[in-house]
Amino acid sequence: MEKDRILDVDQIIELLEKHHFKELKEELETMHPVDIVDILDELDKKQRTLIFRLLAKEEAAEVFTDMDSDMREDLINALSDSELEEVMDEMYVDDTVDVLEEMPANVVDRLIMVTDEDTRKKINALLQYPEDSAGSIMNIEYISLRKEMTVADAILKIRQVGINKETIYTCYVTEKKKLIGMVDVKDLLTAGESRKIGDIMDENVLFARTLDDQEYVANMINKYGLVAIPIIDHEDCLVGIVTVDDAMLVLQDETTEDISIMAGVSPNEDSYFGTSVLQHAKNRSLWLMLLMLSATVTGEILGYYENAMAVMPVLITFIPMLMGTGGNCGSQSSTLVIRGLAVGEIEFKDIFKVIFKEIRVALVVGVLLAAVNGIRIYIMYDRNIMLALALGITMIAVVTMAKCIGCILPLLAKKLGLDPAIMAAPLITTILDTCTILVYFNIVTAFFGL
Amino acid sequence: MEKDRILDVDQIIELLEKHHFKELKEELETMHPVDIVDILDELDKKQRTLIFRLLAKEEAAEVFTDMDSDMREDLINALSDSELEEVMDEMYVDDTVDVLEEMPANVVDRLIMVTDEDTRKKINALLQYPEDSAGSIMNIEYISLRKEMTVADAILKIRQVGINKETIYTCYVTEKKKLIGMVDVKDLLTAGESRKIGDIMDENVLFARTLDDQEYVANMINKYGLVAIPIIDHEDCLVGIVTVDDAMLVLQDETTEDISIMAGVSPNEDSYFGTSVLQHAKNRSLWLMLLMLSATVTGEILGYYENAMAVMPVLITFIPMLMGTGGNCGSQSSTLVIRGLAVGEIEFKDIFKVIFKEIRVALVVGVLLAAVNGIRIYIMYDRNIMLALALGITMIAVVTMAKCIGCILPLLAKKLGLDPAIMAAPLITTILDTCTILVYFNIVTAFFGL
Repeated sequence: MEKDRILDVDQIIELLEKHHFKELKEELETMHPVDIVDILDELDKKQRTLIFRLLAKEEAAEVFTDMDSDMREDLINALSDSELEEVMDEMYVDDTVDVLEEMPANVVDRLIMVTDEDTRKKINALLQYPEDSAGSIMNIEYISLRKEMTVADAILKIRQVGINKETIYTCYVTEKKKLIGMVDVKDLLTAGESRKIGDIMDENVLFARTLDDQEYVANMINKYGLVAIPIIDHEDCLVGIVTVDDAMLVLQDETTEDISIMAGVSPNEDSYFGTSVLQHAKNRSLWLMLLMLSATVTGEILGYYENAMAVMPVLITFIPMLMGTGGNCGSQSSTLVIRGLAVGEIEFKDIFKVIFKEIRVALVVGVLLAAVNGIRIYIMYDRNIMLALALGITMIAVVTMAKCIGCILPLLAKKLGLDPAIMAAPLITTILDTCTILVYFNIVTAFFGL
Repeated sequence: MEKDRILDVDQIIELLEKHHFKELKEELETMHPVDIVDILDELDKKQRTLIFRLLAKEEAAEVFTDMDSDMREDLINALSDSELEEVMDEMYVDDTVDVLEEMPANVVDRLIMVTDEDTRKKINALLQYPEDSAGSIMNIEYISLRKEMTVADAILKIRQVGINKETIYTCYVTEKKKLIGMVDVKDLLTAGESRKIGDIMDENVLFARTLDDQEYVANMINKYGLVAIPIIDHEDCLVGIVTVDDAMLVLQDETTEDISIMAGVSPNEDSYFGTSVLQHAKNRSLWLMLLMLSATVTGEILGYYENAMAVMPVLITFIPMLMGTGGNCGSQSSTLVIRGLAVGEIEFKDIFKVIFKEIRVALVVGVLLAAVNGIRIYIMYDRNIMLALALGITMIAVVTMAKCIGCILPLLAKKLGLDPAIMAAPLITTILDTCTILVYFNIVTAFFGL
C-alpha cells in the first residue's frame, strides 16, 4: 500500500546527488505518474531531465501527459529526437493532440517530425474539431466488436489490442462502422463463451456527437453515471469515446470559468500563475470599466439629493449600510439561482415559483434586519422613532427589490441565451446601488417632507 | 440508439390513459432509469405509482434510487409492504442507507421492517460513519480475490457474484481481510488463465480510510483518474470502495457549498426548492446582519467627513464609483485565489508570489481606470484638472489596496484552518467600503486643504 512508503522530494534529491540511480529507478517504478509530476514540480530543469530518463517507457509517457505545458516545453528542449520519439510512441493520440495544442509552433514541428505517418493522420483529423467540442476531447482508441462475434472471439480481440486501449470497460458493437450496441466487460466475463455478441449486447446505447459541446457530454456522463460515452460523427459512425476522467476535468474547468465570470473576470484557460500580468489586467478591466462608469449614475443621483442631505446630514451615514445590504441580498439570490441553473435544479419555467419564494424570504429577512437596525437607531439617535421607522420601511423595500432583481436577471439571461453567470454580484450590486439610492431618498423625502 | 426514439411525457400519459400497459412496459424497458425519473417528475402521484408498478424489478430499484426524497416518500406511502420488499431486495446497501438518511422516522421503520436480517446489520454498520466521511458514501459490494487464486478462479468468482456488484472494473486482493493489491479486469482478460493473481496483481494500490473526508477521497479519484478507490478501516482491512460516479456527485455538492458560502449564504444539503422559506431566511440572515452592522462603521466615518462634503458637495458624487470599484477589484482577486486554493493551483506558501502579481495587475488596472475616469471628470467638471488628479490618485490607491486585501485574506483563512470561501465578495466588499472611504477623504482633504 503505497501511501505510507512514498519518497519525499528531499529523499529523491539525495538519491540523485549520490548517483544511486538503480535504487531511484526502483522507487520511481512504484510511484504513480501523478505523484512523480508533483515531485518534478519541486526540482530544477536538470534534475527533472535526469529523473525523466530513469522512467520506464510507458510511465514516462504518462508523466509527460500529466505535466503542465511549461515543464513539458523545458523537457522537450532537453530531450533528443530519439528519446522524444519513444515517449510519443507510447502516448495516446488524444493526449498528443492536447499537448500539441499548448506548444509553440517550433516545438510542434519537432514533435510532429518524430511521429509516424499513421499517427500524424489521426492527429490532423482530431485537430480539426472545434475547441470545446466532444470531438476535440474524445479518445480514438476503444474496443469495437461485431455482433457475429462470440464472447470468446471478443475476449481474444481484447487480449490482442486491449493492452493499448485507455479503457476497455465498455466495448461498442458496430455494423458498417455504425454504432448498434454496447457490451460491458462484466457481461463478457459473466456470459458463456459461445454466446454471440449480438445476443448479449445492449441496444439502448447513450451516445453523443462529435460537434456536441464538451460540457453537455460531461454532464451526460455525470447524469447517467457512465464510465465512458461513445461519440458518433454526422454519418452516425462511431469515431471515439469520452471517458469519465476527461469529463471530470471538463466539469471542473467549466465551474472555474463560471466562478470567474461571477466575479466579473473574463475567463481564460491558463492557470492563475500561468496567466501573465497584462492578461490578468485585460481579463479584469472590461467589467471594472463598465461598472465604474455605471456607478457614476448612482453618484449623479446622490448629488441630486444634496439639499436633502444638507437639511438632514444624518441621512448620509445610512447610505453604505443600505447599499451594502441591498447588494448582498441581491447577490445571494442571483448566486443561488445561477448555481441552480448550472446543476439543472432550476429552469426558466420555474421563474414565478422562484420569485414567489424570494419575495417571502425577503419579507422575513427584511423585517428582521429592519428590526435590528431600528433598535440600533432608536438607541444611538436620541430615541428618534420616526428615523427608525423610515429606515425600517426603506430596508424592507430594498431587500425585497434586491431579492427580486437578483433572481429574475439570471433567469432572463438564460432565456435570452446569455450566460446566467454574468448576472452575478458585480453587475447586480451596481444595478442595485442605483435602485437603493432612489428608493431611500424617495421614502425619506416623503417621510420628512424635505 | 436510444435518444432518437425516446417517448416524451405526453406520449406516456396517452398510453397510460388508454390503458396500453403492455406497450408502455416495453417502452419503459428501453429507457434509462434517469430518464424515467425525469418523466415521473412531470406526472401526478397516481400516474407515478402506475408507471413504477410497470417497471422490471431491477429497473424499479434503480429508478427508486435516482428519484428525489419527496417523490420517494409519496411512492413509499402508495406501495404495499411486499412491493417495497421487492424494491429493497434489489437495491445496493449503500443506496439504501442514503435513502434512509433522508426519510422521516415512520418511513424508516417501515423500510427497515421489509429488509432481511443480514442487510439490516450492514445498514446499521454504514449508518455509524460520520456524515461526509468516506465510510458514509462507500459501497460495500465489491470483488475481493485471494493471491493464491488463478485468473480462471477469479473469473469464476466474478461470474458467480459479479452480477450483483455495482462495479467490477477493479478487483481487490486481500489476505486476512487486509488489502494487499489490486487487479484490473483488463488484466484478468489479457493474462493467461492459469496465472496466479499474486503474480499479476499491482501492489501499489492507492487507498483511503473510512474516516477520511469525502471531498479528500473524491479529489484523489479525480487527481489519479481512477474508476474506484478502496476504503480501509483502522485495522487496514478492506471494507468498501468509493466509485467515480459518487466522487463526481461529492465534488459537485462541495462546489455548490463553496459557491453558496462565497455569496454569504450558509450552505445546506437540500435543493433550492427543497429548502423552506424560513430555512432560506435563516441561511441568509446571519451574514446580512453581520455585514449590515459592519457597514454602519463606514456610515459613521462618512458622517465624520460631513464638513468636507459641505464645502465641496461634488465629493459625494464619487463615493458610489469608488466604493463599487474597490469592492469589485477586491472580489475579483479573492475569487481567483479562493478557486485556485480549491483546485490546488495555489497554496499558502505562494502568498508573496500572489501579492507581487496582484500589485502589478493593480497598477496596470488602476492607471487605466484613473485615466478613463480623469478624462470623464475633466470634460464633465469644467476642466477641473486638480479634481481629476485627486480622483486618479485615489483610484490607483483604492485598486491596489483592494487587490492586496482581496488576495491576502483567503490565503490567511486557509492558513488558519478556516474555509477560504468566507473571504469572498460580501465580506471583502464590506471591509473595502470602510478602507475606500478613509483613503478617499484622506487624499482629498490633503489635496484641497479642507
